[in-house]
Amino acid sequence: MTDTTSEIDFNSMLDALHQAIEKNDTSTALQTLQQADHDETAKLIDRLSVVDRQTLFGLLSPEQGAEVLEHVYYFQGADIIEELPAQVAAPFVAKLDSDDRVDLMNELDEEDSQAILEELDDDIAHETRRFMAYPEGTAGAIMYSEFVSFRADMTVEAILNDIQANREQYIEFGVQYAYVLGLEKQLLGVLPVRNLLFASHQQQATEIMIPNPTTVRAYDTVEELEAIFEEHNYLGLPVVNKDGCLIGIIDRESTTEALQEAATEDLLKFQGLMGKEELRSMPLKVRSGRRLSWLSINVVLNLISASVIAMHQDTLEAVIALAVFLPIISDMSGCSGNQAVAVSMRELSLELISPKEFRRVFVKESSVGLINGACLGLLIGGLAWLWKGNAVLGLVVGTALALNTTVAVCVGGLVPLALKACRQDPALASGPILTTVTDMCGFMLILGLASLCLPYLT
Amino acid sequence: MTDTTSEIDFNSMLDALHQAIEKNDTSTALQTLQQADHDETAKLIDRLSVVDRQTLFGLLSPEQGAEVLEHVYYFQGADIIEELPAQVAAPFVAKLDSDDRVDLMNELDEEDSQAILEELDDDIAHETRRFMAYPEGTAGAIMYSEFVSFRADMTVEAILNDIQANREQYIEFGVQYAYVLGLEKQLLGVLPVRNLLFASHQQQATEIMIPNPTTVRAYDTVEELEAIFEEHNYLGLPVVNKDGCLIGIIDRESTTEALQEAATEDLLKFQGLMGKEELRSMPLKVRSGRRLSWLSINVVLNLISASVIAMHQDTLEAVIALAVFLPIISDMSGCSGNQAVAVSMRELSLELISPKEFRRVFVKESSVGLINGACLGLLIGGLAWLWKGNAVLGLVVGTALALNTTVAVCVGGLVPLALKACRQDPALASGPILTTVTDMCGFMLILGLASLCLPYLT
Repeated sequence: MTDTTSEIDFNSMLDALHQAIEKNDTSTALQTLQQADHDETAKLIDRLSVVDRQTLFGLLSPEQGAEVLEHVYYFQGADIIEELPAQVAAPFVAKLDSDDRVDLMNELDEEDSQAILEELDDDIAHETRRFMAYPEGTAGAIMYSEFVSFRADMTVEAILNDIQANREQYIEFGVQYAYVLGLEKQLLGVLPVRNLLFASHQQQATEIMIPNPTTVRAYDTVEELEAIFEEHNYLGLPVVNKDGCLIGIIDRESTTEALQEAATEDLLKFQGLMGKEELRSMPLKVRSGRRLSWLSINVVLNLISASVIAMHQDTLEAVIALAVFLPIISDMSGCSGNQAVAVSMRELSLELISPKEFRRVFVKESSVGLINGACLGLLIGGLAWLWKGNAVLGLVVGTALALNTTVAVCVGGLVPLALKACRQDPALASGPILTTVTDMCGFMLILGLASLCLPYLT
Repeated sequence: MTDTTSEIDFNSMLDALHQAIEKNDTSTALQTLQQADHDETAKLIDRLSVVDRQTLFGLLSPEQGAEVLEHVYYFQGADIIEELPAQVAAPFVAKLDSDDRVDLMNELDEEDSQAILEELDDDIAHETRRFMAYPEGTAGAIMYSEFVSFRADMTVEAILNDIQANREQYIEFGVQYAYVLGLEKQLLGVLPVRNLLFASHQQQATEIMIPNPTTVRAYDTVEELEAIFEEHNYLGLPVVNKDGCLIGIIDRESTTEALQEAATEDLLKFQGLMGKEELRSMPLKVRSGRRLSWLSINVVLNLISASVIAMHQDTLEAVIALAVFLPIISDMSGCSGNQAVAVSMRELSLELISPKEFRRVFVKESSVGLINGACLGLLIGGLAWLWKGNAVLGLVVGTALALNTTVAVCVGGLVPLALKACRQDPALASGPILTTVTDMCGFMLILGLASLCLPYLT
């Protein structure tokens, strides 16, 4: 997408699609969409206006629309669906695979998703509601209900006949495993399809299945699933309810994807984009409002730390050079603390530390904090001395930075553990908590020390 | 790992392992390691001292050691291998799967990896060197050479016999596809193992294979692979050289994992932990040194922006209240700009924008910047007015924050594009560039405006 040829291609595709939509020309619109690969489809949809998207989906059949929805990112699909009236949107939603449908519905506003659920067929609506009830990051949220199962009393021959008869549907499911169920739908075993290669036609399903398979529950976390996939060479995992009945399948890929998504979200949260994700194709009001809601929290935190400076105005007035060092102390301590935050977050996510191991983290971080604080303090304190030719000023600046770096590194290392222990999300809250603490403490240290040494500074 | 029982279990495992190592008791050590699941093994290795790890690997056979290395994170494995002399380490490395071996070797220092390569058998060393030559993020770096291939003239019967004969080895490979090769090893087709289910014994491999399969080249990027996997339901992709010969296999899972790893790395880079990753089990000197190398860049950037304050000392001395607002301007603009950085990074990674679309980003960001700048400026300016009862002070502070927010949002949106266009990593450099620009610009604005309005401020 970076070289000029493909950019020209893309622009001509966008033009063609745009014109087809204006002329209500379904076949050209479809043809253009079929030419585009997934990335291009996502970009095409991103660049269409809201009205164009509505018209386009008016032209498409439920199957064709569902195919477009499956090719774009799920949050783009949610935007499209929100733009349509519920009765127009529902047929497209109905044609999606169960896991894609749940992803998309979860991204909608409560009101929109309820309206669409009411338009769906009862059985689809029921299943969708049930899957939507599972929180993000659990097996229930990523499982799908399209699987192949056989009764325990079927012979290999009967199974092979069934496979031949339903070949096309099963291939679409991407089947590697089939499931052997009892009379009450309880899961008896897993049947790797390739086992059928080595079986005689008279054998029963129960003879060639793997009995007592590893199963998971719908509320198991994605991290727990990943641990199972790491340990075993499974491609899929059956999800059972409390009665042992098969309710869905998890595959390895969607587990890894869910974890990847969580990692990307962590990055966005750190940068203050919480809640629903922003694309530049969204309306200005939405984009500006979402960003302001996060900034307003920062305003309050900033005022708290700035009040420390306000309280020490006399000292600052007497030694105006200190004002130069306030932003440096704030920024450097923030950087040092954030490094410790990152190490803690990483060790937590790798499960190399438990949220209770405060002592270990404190011991390990305080030593790094003291060393790095001493280095930075000597450097910046030395520069302050050279600049103003006042050794006491250097001492005040250097000591404040050294102590505050130590505090920042320890707080940075411990905050993610504390948040995790309180079941809060470390990615979202660690940064603001850290900077507020380090700013307040840093300003207090430099201005407090300066007040004490005031006779030598003026 | 969070409940107390499992923590006690873990500590008793650690004790048992530690004692077994002290007594050179191989069988107890092995037994303890076999009890532990992968997460526990990683944590056990994390908590052993360097000497204990060296002793442990002295006790293990090459196969046993390789199994431990495959159960821990690859960077832990690299640490262990670096702690051992090359001739002791090489047999463990030799027993790893080709992709794990390359991951581990890439994590080693140049010197250590060369020493180990010299100890390996020629054919393994040759293959490893070849795979290591591919840069991170390419197909070559994640492909593996363990695949099952059949000659084009083999019949289904011959293939089935071969499968029966090599069943155990093939199951370990986790084979879903076999590959049909011509006489010069050129790839003719892919043979999904389950196709054998539907074939007659007399058919030839070429009749039931999928001819002209999708192939990739070793220098294709992981993003390109992911695009193919998203579009098609493949589990694996063959990698061919320029002559069309099969040189390795990529699977879907390792592609997604490589992308997930890249996302986590982006997060770490944002927080100033570049280069090799840090664990708290590493020596203090290494941890402190790595963090300082990043902090030292920040010191220089901070001094540049602080020099702006130093140049305006007279103004600051006259209106000391301004000192309270310097850190607020710096922090708030940094937050606003980082939000724009995050949106750009996300749109770039989703390929919804190309690095050339400066105009689109500028138009979209400047409008958000103006709105949010106006809101924040009114708020903070109003507070300044109320606090000191001076409307001009409010005007100076508010205008400076509003303008600087607009600058920060535009710069934040554009810097990742510019870095990407210059083939630099936006995750690493966007933050420091942004904060330096916004600090300098913000300090100049507030202190410059204040100088102009000085008569009304004192």
